Amino acid sequence: MSDTEQRLARLEQRLGAIEDELAITRLILSYGPLVDSGSADAVAALWEADGVYDVDELLMNGRDEITAMVLSKAHQRWISGGCAHFVGAPHVTVNGDDAVAVGYTLMIVRDAASGAFTLRRATANHWRLRRGSDGWRVTTRTNRVLDGRPESPELLASTFAGSHTGERGSTV
Amino acid sequence: MSDTEQRLARLEQRLGAIEDELAITRLILSYGPLVDSGSADAVAALWEADGVYDVDELLMNGRDEITAMVLSKAHQRWISGGCAHFVGAPHVTVNGDDAVAVGYTLMIVRDAASGAFTLRRATANHWRLRRGSDGWRVTTRTNRVLDGRPESPELLASTFAGSHTGERGSTV
Amino acid sequence: MSDTEQRLARLEQRLGAIEDELAITRLILSYGPLVDSGSADAVAALWEADGVYDVDELLMNGRDEITAMVLSKAHQRWISGGCAHFVGAPHVTVNGDDAVAVGYTLMIVRDAASGAFTLRRATANHWRLRRGSDGWRVTTRTNRVLDGRPESPELLASTFAGSHTGERGSTV
Repeated sequence: MSDTEQRLARLEQRLGAIEDELAITRLILSYGPLVDSGSADAVAALWEADGVYDVDELLMNGRDEITAMVLSKAHQRWISGGCAHFVGAPHVTVNGDDAVAVGYTLMIVRDAASGAFTLRRATANHWRLRRGSDGWRVTTRTNRVLDGRPESPELLASTFAGSHTGERGSTV
Repeated sequence: MSDTEQRLARLEQRLGAIEDELAITRLILSYGPLVDSGSADAVAALWEADGVYDVDELLMNGRDEITAMVLSKAHQRWISGGCAHFVGAPHVTVNGDDAVAVGYTLMIVRDAASGAFTLRRATANHWRLRRGSDGWRVTTRTNRVLDGRPESPELLASTFAGSHTGERGSTV
Repeated sequence: MSDTEQRLARLEQRLGAIEDELAITRLILSYGPLVDSGSADAVAALWEADGVYDVDELLMNGRDEITAMVLSKAHQRWISGGCAHFVGAPHVTVNGDDAVAVGYTLMIVRDAASGAFTLRRATANHWRLRRGSDGWRVTTRTNRVLDGRPESPELLASTFAGSHTGERGSTV
């Protein structure tokens, strides 16, 4: 293999890794705008057809159940009252056609009586994603409220076990 | 065109797309630090000379009006009392020399009497940007409070109409 | 130098700049999940061995003091009561083997009595980082609460002095 060929191949590999990380970040950052605008099918399309969305009080299996959550009276009431699902920038780790991401969401709602915005909950988020023929999709997203239950910090820590965190730039 | 030439051209195109997305993200993330430090000219310089900043209660046309907002007594009072314009990571979509981005901002202020931090508002943000001779600049930024008015969710949804969200990585 | 050689060298340089920016962003975004899960050694490992973490009420010198903060009763109490160190996406500027980043953190805690989540503080963050043999590490992180003290806005403004903010994409 020539030097030029090697350098091209290495550039393509490095660039692909960045494109994957940014594509997954974009997917995760699209969740808030889509769910807060009631774009039910587009929310569900972030997941694989049989993807799982596991929230403390609710386990959704497959796109239809995710769509139903967005269309539910409870969720529509959040939207009509004033609501932000504020998704923090995720920490993404790609491994071939699989990826995990960890981050936080804040659910902010407007109180109808006082008009004040209140922080309803802060939640640990763990995402598993897979690359398929249509690009990256969520296989399992797990949310746990940061209310002191041990599961929530464990979810935050799980991605980092046995690995360092900010090193890619150094190995180039 | 040789294979090497094709691969170089494709790499340059892909890399340019990423640089654009990251440059726009950087521009948007600079808004908070600049406005919360009262850096009036630097805030205004994020916009084109005749750019528009359309907030619910205030329409600013051109850089002078944006500078004036930052220098206003009202804004200076936020800074001196304690204030954070917390800008969420945006979801950016580039199309040649035009781009749109969607995201959230939280306005957090410290209450002088109690010393407590309060969430004054959560806002839907929609940015239109254009690449000119000096790089990316904002042409129109539209903010709408997420207080139940239908415009705000519509603003969040507008970017996604007719397109998928996290696919770039998959088409490479 | 041939045209191909020049284009390869330029691509490698541009790609390296992006990898650095993303590696630093990843490092910063890992702070929240690590500190909220009590991963004391992993938090400390984000810093250089003699790195400094300068918070309003506490100056930590070196990894041992950072580890001790995470293991302290005060911090462990936050975790067991429910706590989120919500780190905003940072604005990163790389200059060779040095970098600075500026951003915000929100400290959100659950009130044991009411069960409500409260925003304990909003903080200006300034990070200095250096690339060493193990990759990027924090040399000094400075946090100042945004409670009206002039230092906090000054910290937010310091990165931008004499430079523009979103221009990289335009110079390509």
